[in-house]
Amino acid sequence: MRLSTVRTPSGATAAASHDGDVWRRLPADNLSTLIEGHRLEAIDHLAGAPLPDATLALPLPHPGKVICCGLNYADHVVETGRDLPSHPTLFAKYADTLIGPGEDIVLPHGLEVDWEAELAVVVGETIRGVDVEQARAAIAGYTVANDISVRDWQRRTLQWFQGKAWDRTTPVGPVVVTPDELDPVAGLDVVCRINGEERQRASTGTLVFDSATLLAYISTFTTLRAGDLVLTGTPGGVGMGMTPPTFLASGDHVETEIPGIGTLNNVVRFVN
Amino acid sequence: MRLSTVRTPSGATAAASHDGDVWRRLPADNLSTLIEGHRLEAIDHLAGAPLPDATLALPLPHPGKVICCGLNYADHVVETGRDLPSHPTLFAKYADTLIGPGEDIVLPHGLEVDWEAELAVVVGETIRGVDVEQARAAIAGYTVANDISVRDWQRRTLQWFQGKAWDRTTPVGPVVVTPDELDPVAGLDVVCRINGEERQRASTGTLVFDSATLLAYISTFTTLRAGDLVLTGTPGGVGMGMTPPTFLASGDHVETEIPGIGTLNNVVRFVN
Repeated sequence: MRLSTVRTPSGATAAASHDGDVWRRLPADNLSTLIEGHRLEAIDHLAGAPLPDATLALPLPHPGKVICCGLNYADHVVETGRDLPSHPTLFAKYADTLIGPGEDIVLPHGLEVDWEAELAVVVGETIRGVDVEQARAAIAGYTVANDISVRDWQRRTLQWFQGKAWDRTTPVGPVVVTPDELDPVAGLDVVCRINGEERQRASTGTLVFDSATLLAYISTFTTLRAGDLVLTGTPGGVGMGMTPPTFLASGDHVETEIPGIGTLNNVVRFVN
Repeated sequence: MRLSTVRTPSGATAAASHDGDVWRRLPADNLSTLIEGHRLEAIDHLAGAPLPDATLALPLPHPGKVICCGLNYADHVVETGRDLPSHPTLFAKYADTLIGPGEDIVLPHGLEVDWEAELAVVVGETIRGVDVEQARAAIAGYTVANDISVRDWQRRTLQWFQGKAWDRTTPVGPVVVTPDELDPVAGLDVVCRINGEERQRASTGTLVFDSATLLAYISTFTTLRAGDLVLTGTPGGVGMGMTPPTFLASGDHVETEIPGIGTLNNVVRFVN
């Protein structure tokens, strides 16, 4: 099943689709609200009337937590000059960073803006102190994200937060696919294209810490709740790893794709 | 004016006090809700009946953002072996980390748990891209916080988040004092005592980045809203800086005080 938030002529609504084509109304204004109020198993039974004029929006507009893992693909770890990690490197951002499919990545001029295509995991129920199997059972689904990063701010200090938490810069979507349809451990390609040129492609099968392991680890110290997002990290091929380092320009088209989930299309727009 | 959330025999409520003694009811269940819905100037006029049996609780139970500054006192920067910073070091935590006055700091056995007494700033209105003077005008008040840190997890990776974001470990309160009554730039003492022994004492006048500067800087990249908290950093004297490094034990009494605001009393309790 695919889940998302869609825009319709009569307003936004959470919606479900079996084929990715016909979307049916779910009883909430958006998927964040729906998923906070209903157990996953119940969602399929809630789907109502088809929505003929639905366009996909940011699936999860208000997750309570957006926790990101860095340095989680062996090739990206190597391009940043580091050793393979014994523990996941985690940092936090807030829901304000998120934008949906088709929305512009708006930033001021003069920043070093880089791409980071990622698989994101959607939490489906409240978990704290769970093991990996319990964490796996708590996964509501998977979506695509691009952890667009302002490298000069990220490097200003030891902590990456200020380069990662610019409002309205992290595309997420276009849909959430339930785990019965996908297995990132078996391998999903994570792809980033800039103006049509492929810059990143790696399999989630090569993640150092897989989705369930990340959720279990995070749940050791903080509660994860339905609708929370965990970004699993980006593979090699980011702009700062190129020779010479290459960053995004205003007007650049950022395409972030995981075949089996979907593609995010976002344009960078620098403003004064 | 002092603002907080208080427990009463008829339930929790936001409350205001002029003398810190008699608390008057404000029209919201807690100060987070109140401050999100009302401009600061209006709050004094909203105060209703006195609350004879009020006890102080966590003033702000659900800030949307809790952003922390590290390495902001010259002496603490020196004890961690670093140079004075050109930019504030920032990291994020979530509201789940917060506890109120008198509440236990509950953690599993076997962690290196350290204290970090701090001045915290409460945001009073929505700001984005403001200058320092506008940021200063947006300050709702000041409170006391202890950014209790799990040092072994903080050191596991480059990013401090996983050592800083354990649920229910960051005492905040006991009250928020409005800026007409206090000037941290002129200097407020920030004090931490462990089992009655003073471990930290420094003046907020020695902060590298003062409250308004931090708010303005953060507002460059993300929106701050009424009720958000910014923790301004801890001075020298933390346990990991002692010889030998010294951490908290179960039963230890953590007293965090800023004279002019108040004192937080919290006991560490390790559980299995």
